[in-house]
Amino acid sequence: MEGQCSTVLVTGGAGYAGSHTVLVLLQWGYQVVVVDNCTNCAAPTAPDALPPSLLQVKDICQKAPVFYQAALDDGPALLSIFKKHKIDAVIHFAALKAVGESVQKPLMYYHNNLLATISLLEAMEAAGVRRLVFSSSATVYGIPQYLPIDEDHPVGQSITNPYGHTKHMCEQILRDIVQSNNDWKVILLRYFNPVGAHESGKMGEDPIGVPNNLMPFIAQVAVGRREKLSIFGNDFDTDDGTGVRDYIHVMDLAEGHVSTLRRLLSDDFRGCRAYNLGTGVGVSVMQMLQAFQKSCGRSLPYEVVARRAGDCARMLASCTRARTELGWTATRTLQDMCDDTWRWQSSHPNGYATS
Amino acid sequence: MEGQCSTVLVTGGAGYAGSHTVLVLLQWGYQVVVVDNCTNCAAPTAPDALPPSLLQVKDICQKAPVFYQAALDDGPALLSIFKKHKIDAVIHFAALKAVGESVQKPLMYYHNNLLATISLLEAMEAAGVRRLVFSSSATVYGIPQYLPIDEDHPVGQSITNPYGHTKHMCEQILRDIVQSNNDWKVILLRYFNPVGAHESGKMGEDPIGVPNNLMPFIAQVAVGRREKLSIFGNDFDTDDGTGVRDYIHVMDLAEGHVSTLRRLLSDDFRGCRAYNLGTGVGVSVMQMLQAFQKSCGRSLPYEVVARRAGDCARMLASCTRARTELGWTATRTLQDMCDDTWRWQSSHPNGYATS
Repeated sequence: MEGQCSTVLVTGGAGYAGSHTVLVLLQWGYQVVVVDNCTNCAAPTAPDALPPSLLQVKDICQKAPVFYQAALDDGPALLSIFKKHKIDAVIHFAALKAVGESVQKPLMYYHNNLLATISLLEAMEAAGVRRLVFSSSATVYGIPQYLPIDEDHPVGQSITNPYGHTKHMCEQILRDIVQSNNDWKVILLRYFNPVGAHESGKMGEDPIGVPNNLMPFIAQVAVGRREKLSIFGNDFDTDDGTGVRDYIHVMDLAEGHVSTLRRLLSDDFRGCRAYNLGTGVGVSVMQMLQAFQKSCGRSLPYEVVARRAGDCARMLASCTRARTELGWTATRTLQDMCDDTWRWQSSHPNGYATS
Repeated sequence: MEGQCSTVLVTGGAGYAGSHTVLVLLQWGYQVVVVDNCTNCAAPTAPDALPPSLLQVKDICQKAPVFYQAALDDGPALLSIFKKHKIDAVIHFAALKAVGESVQKPLMYYHNNLLATISLLEAMEAAGVRRLVFSSSATVYGIPQYLPIDEDHPVGQSITNPYGHTKHMCEQILRDIVQSNNDWKVILLRYFNPVGAHESGKMGEDPIGVPNNLMPFIAQVAVGRREKLSIFGNDFDTDDGTGVRDYIHVMDLAEGHVSTLRRLLSDDFRGCRAYNLGTGVGVSVMQMLQAFQKSCGRSLPYEVVARRAGDCARMLASCTRARTELGWTATRTLQDMCDDTWRWQSSHPNGYATS
């Protein structure tokens, strides 16, 4: 663990990807300031307390971030945070991310994801902090035109939901800002499918309501919170007919952010650059289910239902650019992802509410 | 002039396209409520007074809109306006629109154009007003893939400036909202190049600072406010080498909005539909200059300078859809555009400040 003297502001730092990244940042010696409104994660149980996810971070690494419960579109609150701390860079996780919900409530998604980002950028500009890591998504690629998808794949075409549009729009806004002022330095991280949990079993994904994604759904079936898994289509053009995705362990993702930050803070970094964070390995729904059954030691009920609108057969990242330019590569296996998820879910059947 | 009992809220109604549209709406018997923050047009000279452009409207048609000087991102102000008036539909002009400035100050453009639109939509949703005409732009087509450009031409690709991106993003937001709730009915109007002035000479374009567009620049040269016209490139692949655009008389544009509104308010209109507003006639910079010289009766100095980044040789609208579905077509000629601009500019050398 090398010492660092940089201070990083992490928006959405109490959430799933955010909290795991905060942990790794602290372990690497960064000073961390978290801003989260806690609308989509467990909130602190007392004023001035940390939210449960960050209490676990503290428990694991014996260090804690500074925490502010604030909304990003509260400009004055944000500015006062930038005044109180000498921030070197921002990692911007905060966003709503449920694809299906975004189709139902697009205005809520545009409000949250766009306004928060614009407001954050204004505060950064006012504070003279112009280095940003942005949590984007493979969704910006739309329906893949070729596989594996590299960072030069067209973006913005055939995106099938407002969530994806918000990510693409934020990327565009950031590109334009860098174009207008080369003091700005931005890295766009396009996540494929983050899953898994910290290997301690103390932290993990804790979705509110019905999970939108495969892994937390399987985990909740395994722990008895859901009756059975719904598999959306088994007639795709894949080996077993179920959809193939590129799953990445959340701890690999977190480590990817530290590598990214190091690149962003290096003297020679310029402009705005996108990187895929994935493994390059395709995993089908059935393969994931089988791996998870191995982790939890029992067979899990499922049914095959209709495809969801907008789902494609296969998504797969090319991770060459991140490997060569960031010096980062994912190291954890599918079985690690399932084992770690099961360790977290079985010890926390109701997520952080169990703690 | 047929009687109408509908009430229309017009955002940006004190601006160039907005004020001419307000005039035509009033003449057709609509009740009009204008919301404008007057940051980009002449403001009222006294509290509770109309801004100069709307004083001229009143002078011409002996009717006046209700006027509120307010910013669209002021949600409570907007909601109180929706409570005070029974609004049937909204025409949303309000936006920053200087292409070059948007490249310099992208965050200002994203803030203004996106936040204003999202805030307006939230107020409309809260008030149960779900019919909207949106001022979009031919810019959303990017560099034309074919000519004339019809409404099925791809959008969002190769847009060369943040202004164009804001228009494309707002279109996407509106499409998603209509998709999520079919009570919403939206018409996107993609303007080509609005020029000209009301034939009375009492109203016209009154740009703040250096004009961004050709016609007001020519007019200011003609009236002596600018030394000479800069022509950005004469080596394009066009007949005379200068760029060709589809100019539309602002009164044709205004009448197009009334036809659009009638369609939007009809019982059988559903969904979200885009229409080009143009003439389908291409006019080069040299042709425009010659026509204007005829209007003002003298030859105007110009110099040819380098092309601007992002400028293409030709843009031209297909106006078939507006003709067949809205029953609207532009009727005014290039000479009308120049004559009317000159009437306005020569009697108001300093715009509304002359009045």
